[in-house]
Amino acid sequence: MVGAGFGGLGAARWLARQPGVQVTLVDKRNHHLFQALLYQVASAGLNPSEIASPVRGLFRKSPNVRVIMAELSALDADKKIAYFDEGQIEVAYDAVVLSLGGETNYFGHPEWARFAPGLKSIEQALWLRGHVLEAFEKAEKSQDEALRRQLMTIVVIGAGPTGVELSGAFAELRRHVLRWDFRDIHPEQARVVLLEGGPRVLAAFPPDLSEAARLDLEALGVEVRLSERVQEIGEGYLVTDQGRIEAHTMVWAAGVSGHPLAARLGLPTVAAGRVPVLPDLSVAGMDGVFCLGDMCFCPDDQGKPLPGMAPVAMQQGPVAAANALAYLQGRPTQPFCYQDPGIMATVGRTRGVAVLGNRHFSGTRGWFTWLWHHLLRIVDFQNRALVSARWAWAYVSWKWGVRLIHGGAGESQQIKEK
Amino acid sequence: MVGAGFGGLGAARWLARQPGVQVTLVDKRNHHLFQALLYQVASAGLNPSEIASPVRGLFRKSPNVRVIMAELSALDADKKIAYFDEGQIEVAYDAVVLSLGGETNYFGHPEWARFAPGLKSIEQALWLRGHVLEAFEKAEKSQDEALRRQLMTIVVIGAGPTGVELSGAFAELRRHVLRWDFRDIHPEQARVVLLEGGPRVLAAFPPDLSEAARLDLEALGVEVRLSERVQEIGEGYLVTDQGRIEAHTMVWAAGVSGHPLAARLGLPTVAAGRVPVLPDLSVAGMDGVFCLGDMCFCPDDQGKPLPGMAPVAMQQGPVAAANALAYLQGRPTQPFCYQDPGIMATVGRTRGVAVLGNRHFSGTRGWFTWLWHHLLRIVDFQNRALVSARWAWAYVSWKWGVRLIHGGAGESQQIKEK
Repeated sequence: MVGAGFGGLGAARWLARQPGVQVTLVDKRNHHLFQALLYQVASAGLNPSEIASPVRGLFRKSPNVRVIMAELSALDADKKIAYFDEGQIEVAYDAVVLSLGGETNYFGHPEWARFAPGLKSIEQALWLRGHVLEAFEKAEKSQDEALRRQLMTIVVIGAGPTGVELSGAFAELRRHVLRWDFRDIHPEQARVVLLEGGPRVLAAFPPDLSEAARLDLEALGVEVRLSERVQEIGEGYLVTDQGRIEAHTMVWAAGVSGHPLAARLGLPTVAAGRVPVLPDLSVAGMDGVFCLGDMCFCPDDQGKPLPGMAPVAMQQGPVAAANALAYLQGRPTQPFCYQDPGIMATVGRTRGVAVLGNRHFSGTRGWFTWLWHHLLRIVDFQNRALVSARWAWAYVSWKWGVRLIHGGAGESQQIKEK
Repeated sequence: MVGAGFGGLGAARWLARQPGVQVTLVDKRNHHLFQALLYQVASAGLNPSEIASPVRGLFRKSPNVRVIMAELSALDADKKIAYFDEGQIEVAYDAVVLSLGGETNYFGHPEWARFAPGLKSIEQALWLRGHVLEAFEKAEKSQDEALRRQLMTIVVIGAGPTGVELSGAFAELRRHVLRWDFRDIHPEQARVVLLEGGPRVLAAFPPDLSEAARLDLEALGVEVRLSERVQEIGEGYLVTDQGRIEAHTMVWAAGVSGHPLAARLGLPTVAAGRVPVLPDLSVAGMDGVFCLGDMCFCPDDQGKPLPGMAPVAMQQGPVAAANALAYLQGRPTQPFCYQDPGIMATVGRTRGVAVLGNRHFSGTRGWFTWLWHHLLRIVDFQNRALVSARWAWAYVSWKWGVRLIHGGAGESQQIKEK
């Protein structure tokens, strides 16, 4: 079992309950991270520990689960051995479930990662938070109007759920929190730009909800620019097919590809580096290897790939685990069938859009739907309580608790380049 | 006003209430930090944001206070100009209160900082937390017994309040939290060593309380070694006058000196780089310059210097501010007179020692005294509530919420070397 995201965790939990099965769960980090709330860490709303849980703690009461913090480096599917930490650790397995997640997709421009990092890890979220807050501090010190404007411009590229939620959160941070903090600058006049190459925001949602989300974003003061494509990104600026924007902060939320390790491990890959899987989530031609989540290419009934979202991975986890066990016991495996639980996104702190079955929610009702489903998905009870308390407090007081800048400039650079 | 520790903050708050006074508060960080609780961040008990508050937020409602995030680089006491960020920013002043704090004192061995960092900043606390948790992860992966023992040894050097509290917290983390997390290693057998050059722990306390604290520490499984002096520190080991210890983690809590900037600014310095002040906290020979807190050398009635502790700085703040105002208005200044509010330290989660006036508390009563006074000193109401809730939860569940490792190895190195 490699990877402790929603997929890997679900698979490990399912197997932990089977008598006689020994599970080794390996992840290169020591925590499970609720990525959908990372934008809250980046916008100073939550602490990292409130959206992440130490993996060991989750399996305390499962004596048949062993947790190792290590990075997968090679896989020998014939000998059934997985190698970690450049071969320092070998784990012999009977079946392996790979759930490594994805990485930010720059569509052929990896050099842009330096200037417009993605939002996939705690480090990136903390970097982004510090970067934005530091920019406002610099603007307060500066007398140069052009420089101030550049420092106070944030561009979010890509209007999927992450881009919409992040730009909405920055717009509120600026308007309701930071405006009271400064004397010389007016943070509420900072620009938050949301760039989208397609014709509407939240392309995965029905058009009426896309429109509702766009109006909500504009009400928050987000500059939504549609059908505009990025052509060049450099230090502190960005060029699109419609002009140049001077921006100190840029975030890439335009796409996720499969995990770069897939090719190195010798797994087959298709579009965007994803690993194609059979209906039972096994990898063709590799005995006893199952693959799920963002790293795999799993077509739905119509042959379209399932999106890289937590609900998909959460449903795939137990199925892959059950199929791995069936494979070991020589029983037939079951195909994975995705039950769409709906999709949702929040826009600022009181608006949201959601699709549940045939019902469309927007505005405050959309937001309550979002809140309810996201709180339920936080795996750890203490965090669920803390996040609720922190949000309730922030809603009442219009104060965000975690506006801290820590870590030096050198460190930021390093994280950006990861 | 330079520095937003307890001293600078107290001075700025006092001046903020005076009509007609313009206050500029400058700190190189954007947050006020409650350093006495840093050991809780290092031992995975609290989040950074729970012991730190953004400075701007604290002065939201004070229109006559301007907050700048910048680092003092020079001071021209004749022209009355302070220079920040290597001269990029100039601030003309009528009077200035310096409260820069202190730095870890290695007593002539600055090269030891690389191997045994101090505990003065959020970065150092997060580094220490990640370093210790990572060591246990490495031990779990290793089969080499000697290496495992080295990885699982933590040495705290210096048995003042920080050293005592930190070693107690690590002992509990190991025994009550981590022991359930691992399968191959036994974290409860990890060694926590507290080294002290003097004959007893907590030398500033009366001997009976030192003895109570030592017994409490030993009950928690801390190896307390007194009258033992460090002679050499290197990567992963330490040599004292009584032998060599192989230890992956070493923390220096043996002393605080004045701020290194003091000499660079042309201020007079005495023992340990501290700035001697007159009874009214002004610096002799420098017109309109006041100095307080850890960076100054301020003798008490018997001529002994006051210790570098939060209560001293907290009391000095308003006095320095009032004297600065008196100086501006040509009125006579008042001498500072320290009212000892007592001293206290906690040993683990239910024991502590405290001196209040003539009364000595130890055990659970000492701990309650500590808890009460520390919660009151957290400057921000939200944090006070959150810390209480987190502690209450941890006491009931024996779970520490923030056992996260984040930030790469390169970054750690950098922070260590600061």
